[in-house]
Amino acid sequence: MLQTSSIESSQADLDEFYRTLETKELSPLWTAPDVGASHSPKSRAVPHRWRWADIRPLALRASELVGTKQAERRVLRLLNPAIKGRSATTNTLFAGIQIVMPGEVARAHRHTPSALRLVIEGEGGYTNVNGEPLAMLPGDLVLTPNWTWHDHANTTGKPMIWLDGLDLPLVNLLESAVFEEYHAESQPLSEAQGLSLVKHGAGALQPAWERPTARHSPLMHYPWPQAKAALDGVSGMTAGSPFDGVILEYTNPSTGGPCMPTMACFIQLLRPGERTRSHRHNSGAVYHAVQGRGVTEVDGQDLEWGDKDVFCVPGWATHAHRNLSATEPAYLFSFTDQPVLRALDLYREEEQ
Amino acid sequence: MLQTSSIESSQADLDEFYRTLETKELSPLWTAPDVGASHSPKSRAVPHRWRWADIRPLALRASELVGTKQAERRVLRLLNPAIKGRSATTNTLFAGIQIVMPGEVARAHRHTPSALRLVIEGEGGYTNVNGEPLAMLPGDLVLTPNWTWHDHANTTGKPMIWLDGLDLPLVNLLESAVFEEYHAESQPLSEAQGLSLVKHGAGALQPAWERPTARHSPLMHYPWPQAKAALDGVSGMTAGSPFDGVILEYTNPSTGGPCMPTMACFIQLLRPGERTRSHRHNSGAVYHAVQGRGVTEVDGQDLEWGDKDVFCVPGWATHAHRNLSATEPAYLFSFTDQPVLRALDLYREEEQ
Amino acid sequence: MLQTSSIESSQADLDEFYRTLETKELSPLWTAPDVGASHSPKSRAVPHRWRWADIRPLALRASELVGTKQAERRVLRLLNPAIKGRSATTNTLFAGIQIVMPGEVARAHRHTPSALRLVIEGEGGYTNVNGEPLAMLPGDLVLTPNWTWHDHANTTGKPMIWLDGLDLPLVNLLESAVFEEYHAESQPLSEAQGLSLVKHGAGALQPAWERPTARHSPLMHYPWPQAKAALDGVSGMTAGSPFDGVILEYTNPSTGGPCMPTMACFIQLLRPGERTRSHRHNSGAVYHAVQGRGVTEVDGQDLEWGDKDVFCVPGWATHAHRNLSATEPAYLFSFTDQPVLRALDLYREEEQ
Amino acid sequence: MLQTSSIESSQADLDEFYRTLETKELSPLWTAPDVGASHSPKSRAVPHRWRWADIRPLALRASELVGTKQAERRVLRLLNPAIKGRSATTNTLFAGIQIVMPGEVARAHRHTPSALRLVIEGEGGYTNVNGEPLAMLPGDLVLTPNWTWHDHANTTGKPMIWLDGLDLPLVNLLESAVFEEYHAESQPLSEAQGLSLVKHGAGALQPAWERPTARHSPLMHYPWPQAKAALDGVSGMTAGSPFDGVILEYTNPSTGGPCMPTMACFIQLLRPGERTRSHRHNSGAVYHAVQGRGVTEVDGQDLEWGDKDVFCVPGWATHAHRNLSATEPAYLFSFTDQPVLRALDLYREEEQ
Repeated sequence: MLQTSSIESSQADLDEFYRTLETKELSPLWTAPDVGASHSPKSRAVPHRWRWADIRPLALRASELVGTKQAERRVLRLLNPAIKGRSATTNTLFAGIQIVMPGEVARAHRHTPSALRLVIEGEGGYTNVNGEPLAMLPGDLVLTPNWTWHDHANTTGKPMIWLDGLDLPLVNLLESAVFEEYHAESQPLSEAQGLSLVKHGAGALQPAWERPTARHSPLMHYPWPQAKAALDGVSGMTAGSPFDGVILEYTNPSTGGPCMPTMACFIQLLRPGERTRSHRHNSGAVYHAVQGRGVTEVDGQDLEWGDKDVFCVPGWATHAHRNLSATEPAYLFSFTDQPVLRALDLYREEEQ
Repeated sequence: MLQTSSIESSQADLDEFYRTLETKELSPLWTAPDVGASHSPKSRAVPHRWRWADIRPLALRASELVGTKQAERRVLRLLNPAIKGRSATTNTLFAGIQIVMPGEVARAHRHTPSALRLVIEGEGGYTNVNGEPLAMLPGDLVLTPNWTWHDHANTTGKPMIWLDGLDLPLVNLLESAVFEEYHAESQPLSEAQGLSLVKHGAGALQPAWERPTARHSPLMHYPWPQAKAALDGVSGMTAGSPFDGVILEYTNPSTGGPCMPTMACFIQLLRPGERTRSHRHNSGAVYHAVQGRGVTEVDGQDLEWGDKDVFCVPGWATHAHRNLSATEPAYLFSFTDQPVLRALDLYREEEQ
Repeated sequence: MLQTSSIESSQADLDEFYRTLETKELSPLWTAPDVGASHSPKSRAVPHRWRWADIRPLALRASELVGTKQAERRVLRLLNPAIKGRSATTNTLFAGIQIVMPGEVARAHRHTPSALRLVIEGEGGYTNVNGEPLAMLPGDLVLTPNWTWHDHANTTGKPMIWLDGLDLPLVNLLESAVFEEYHAESQPLSEAQGLSLVKHGAGALQPAWERPTARHSPLMHYPWPQAKAALDGVSGMTAGSPFDGVILEYTNPSTGGPCMPTMACFIQLLRPGERTRSHRHNSGAVYHAVQGRGVTEVDGQDLEWGDKDVFCVPGWATHAHRNLSATEPAYLFSFTDQPVLRALDLYREEEQ
Repeated sequence: MLQTSSIESSQADLDEFYRTLETKELSPLWTAPDVGASHSPKSRAVPHRWRWADIRPLALRASELVGTKQAERRVLRLLNPAIKGRSATTNTLFAGIQIVMPGEVARAHRHTPSALRLVIEGEGGYTNVNGEPLAMLPGDLVLTPNWTWHDHANTTGKPMIWLDGLDLPLVNLLESAVFEEYHAESQPLSEAQGLSLVKHGAGALQPAWERPTARHSPLMHYPWPQAKAALDGVSGMTAGSPFDGVILEYTNPSTGGPCMPTMACFIQLLRPGERTRSHRHNSGAVYHAVQGRGVTEVDGQDLEWGDKDVFCVPGWATHAHRNLSATEPAYLFSFTDQPVLRALDLYREEEQ
């Protein structure tokens, strides 16, 4: 009859065997710590919150100390306290705070990591993506997808500050990061400002004379007023998600899928006093409070957040949100690596 | 050596053979008129234009002569003059003009043919689709896709008149029409008015807590002001199509594809004085001038159109548009069977 | 309160109104016979069976009377007795019997209707598709998809006879038939015989150095021995379909879908004495008994079939099969328009 | 005018600033080593070859020292010499050599990492996947996809040895590894041996009565004789790839895509004396010489291989193959993470 076998060996024999294996670049699987050990997904990352009150003065101080000639990008990294040696906020996602001062440009380059920008402060300015200037006003989401040329310019009299979100840790994990500098500090403005928004941002109406060929969204600017109005409208009419309240995804209008193949972006509204149920999923997320004040309980730990704070929820961490205001809605922006896990058939989610 | 063979037979032998074939329900292919004859697609349909000035008084007269109890739908059919015995405006598309008077309801039913409504006159009223009332104001596009329950109600003091577009001729050609009456005159209003528009019509923002499962668009109401604003915006920034000017498709936001699997809907703007180039495609189309005055040349014949007129362009007919006004844009709505031909790998298009 | 309206009108008023409508190319929907009438799909076609014993001598007689110079294709049409004026075996499918005599070629052409060939008699010969000769032995399925150049050559000393299956009626219904003659009687043999079979027919192993770009299968020859062996193997191991016994689809290996966008092909085995349950679907089908003897009950009518007979089952006809032999399996080939109805979201099926 | 700014700061100011940042879990991006540095993809892995002559005796020795009760899997890991602390042969792929002795079973479990088995030695035995025993003969490829229950049993009198391929390093990088033990040592044999091969392995013929719902291939056993015959057939008829000779992919027959979402498997034939051109791609690969003798030049380094040797080619390493025999073909099996990079729009390939 077939069954597992049991063999008693001396430690000396085993040790000698293991030494022999080493000489041939071989090693036993049965002593490997990273195989077969985990009965559930587990992220090295820990939940963490960064206060806007801490970030802002330091971003301004950075703008006094370092120029955009010295720093390709003047960004403060929001690194996960438990991940060492990698530019990572969760396992696969990076968040940073970038500041561009009046008259400055953050010079043109492109890279295989995809990026998003959620504007926090500013009175204008733009990100130039492949020649099209995309306006940057507070609450706006701007994309600079994989391998698109981009530079950032502040044409106003006030600092521009935004949240950077990148899949850089993922692309580094996959050893696929490539970076290229543009031949000049900035690209010419070859397209009219607002063109892609006008073409692709008008409800479900899309140009019939051309088909997007890139894998990312042809719409790369999602203005805040449109997002806020949508949330306010939906929240009055339907319950939304038990775990997230009213939560909308910034989709790629040519597919209905995520705006970029590696990151999905969301905006959600928690009604005054709303308290969501707990769940967990192996995708991680970075959140930014566009407006409002609340608490997100993550694996039993309360992350309290207010206007413009940033926090992260690692993969498989159980979490629930609540709005601490009894009168005002709270608006949370977030981005996740959910599309990566779905594409690879590795996504898991469970109610708690 | 292989080659075609040549055989001389007497007509008497052939005739006798053909008679024998008949007795066995067989027949020769080489004498068949519908095989191998066509060197290009050819539609039986002819171009035709219906004047609003003719339609409107007759629609009002219909409302005096026939009730919605007698007529399941009080619709004037715009049948192609060259297609006999079928309710068809082009080979696969049907267009009609429907009128619902104050206080009336057009009773609830469902059917496998898909339908669209482009509102021409009215001050309100709604189409109830599966319990959700969809507002109907001039220029609005409303869908009642395959097998959705729907009834139409006029809650205002003025007549409601709209253009009906259906794939009925196609579904009849495919012998797949099924019709079912609802158990009551109208469905209850189980959803809030505007719900699907609020959920699915806000730019590229889409609900993250549910995924549409139907093959048709979850958005079934596309308001005119949004369409007009999009066209006006785009027309100032980019050329659009050489054949159609600025033309936008009403897409399914969950796929980026056509709003229904069998019909695609478009809205286009011809700038003052604009004159497009000629092309042809084997999809047919029905047009409705939402606003403006122009000429569409179809296979050498000028179809002149003004406000609210309807006209059809058969498949493979060469056509070009021009706006007759030197100062005002013209807005054309149209629907086609292009998705059918694309799905079956039969679509063809060529510049002329 | 909203409700349907009831209006009493004199017949004279209505008649006058209808006459006026006519002058404007308008007509009432409420008197139209083809709108809203059908409570279930309904095909004009009737079930019918053609005996091989009748077909074969007439095919041979045709080869004495008509050359392939006179007849572009020497085909006997198997037209549905209830469909008049169209080359149609079911509403959308055409079946014919083609015969090519020793030394003959059926000359090269291409057309938008897609075709399949199920070989009935022959000792070799080939169909040349875009320069590649595809072998034709009894039971083999050979495809000549939409717009591929093809000619048929008999390089043997015996007649070649096969079943032709085309979507010609569908393509004609969609007014999209285009036909083009090749500049010579036959194409050069530019590819090795068996190339596509070797490249794409070996289980799930597919060439890694190229990706098929056409919408149809890159595999265009499915040999009978492979099909028979698969059926025999599967039938010993699993029950298969309650409605069809062990039924396999000839798929497109680059998609897993139907071999062509408009027609799906199947081969099924009914075990000795097997009797299937009844169902119906709005796709129609043409069957050919490759081997065996049975009865297919269609809407209460028994179609008895033996070796090489052909029969059709119209859309929505209730049908069940039984193998009349207590000792031998029966093998049925069939093709249907199911992919068309699925693509358009019109497919319906129900157990009876 | 907009331009990059240049600021001179003292090191003391910068140091103080960096210290302050640290107190808030912030850090400068402009000093980060892992951001923006790489002008091309770069793998930590190095090319390496493991000799079968080394592996085999050590595998047999392992079977004397460790039982399958002690070792969940008796596997020798082939770890990349340049990757420390991870069970990884390339960045995302793991290769091991597993041995199961007569009468033994490697007990049942499941895990989110997907696995493949390429059999090297054995006279039978099977892998039981979800109750179906899949035969294991030399050269056979057997899949145990993500979250399928599986155990391995040696029912013969000789050792079974095979190459294990897993995406374990990838799933670990994505922090998504989950492992679960079955409640017994082995699963019951609930399905007949050969069922899925019979159902899904017969050319393009696929069951019509069921649609696979999993994301992985419904075919999980690809026998060697079929693969060899396909290669031998194709190699006589067409050139294949300039970089790989005749190379076939083990596809998922229900999609035409890779057999599993995270790994693609290939079998290739190098003709006697064949020498391929160089290219590189950011996917990495593990190779196993099923039969033959050759050299693969990787980034200028010659990896010579013979029967049953294993070697790895890291991502972006330039490589070309040559068959050292002037008379015998060489057969190489390989697996890669190409589907991962394609799914995420990160795949890059270039000719050298």
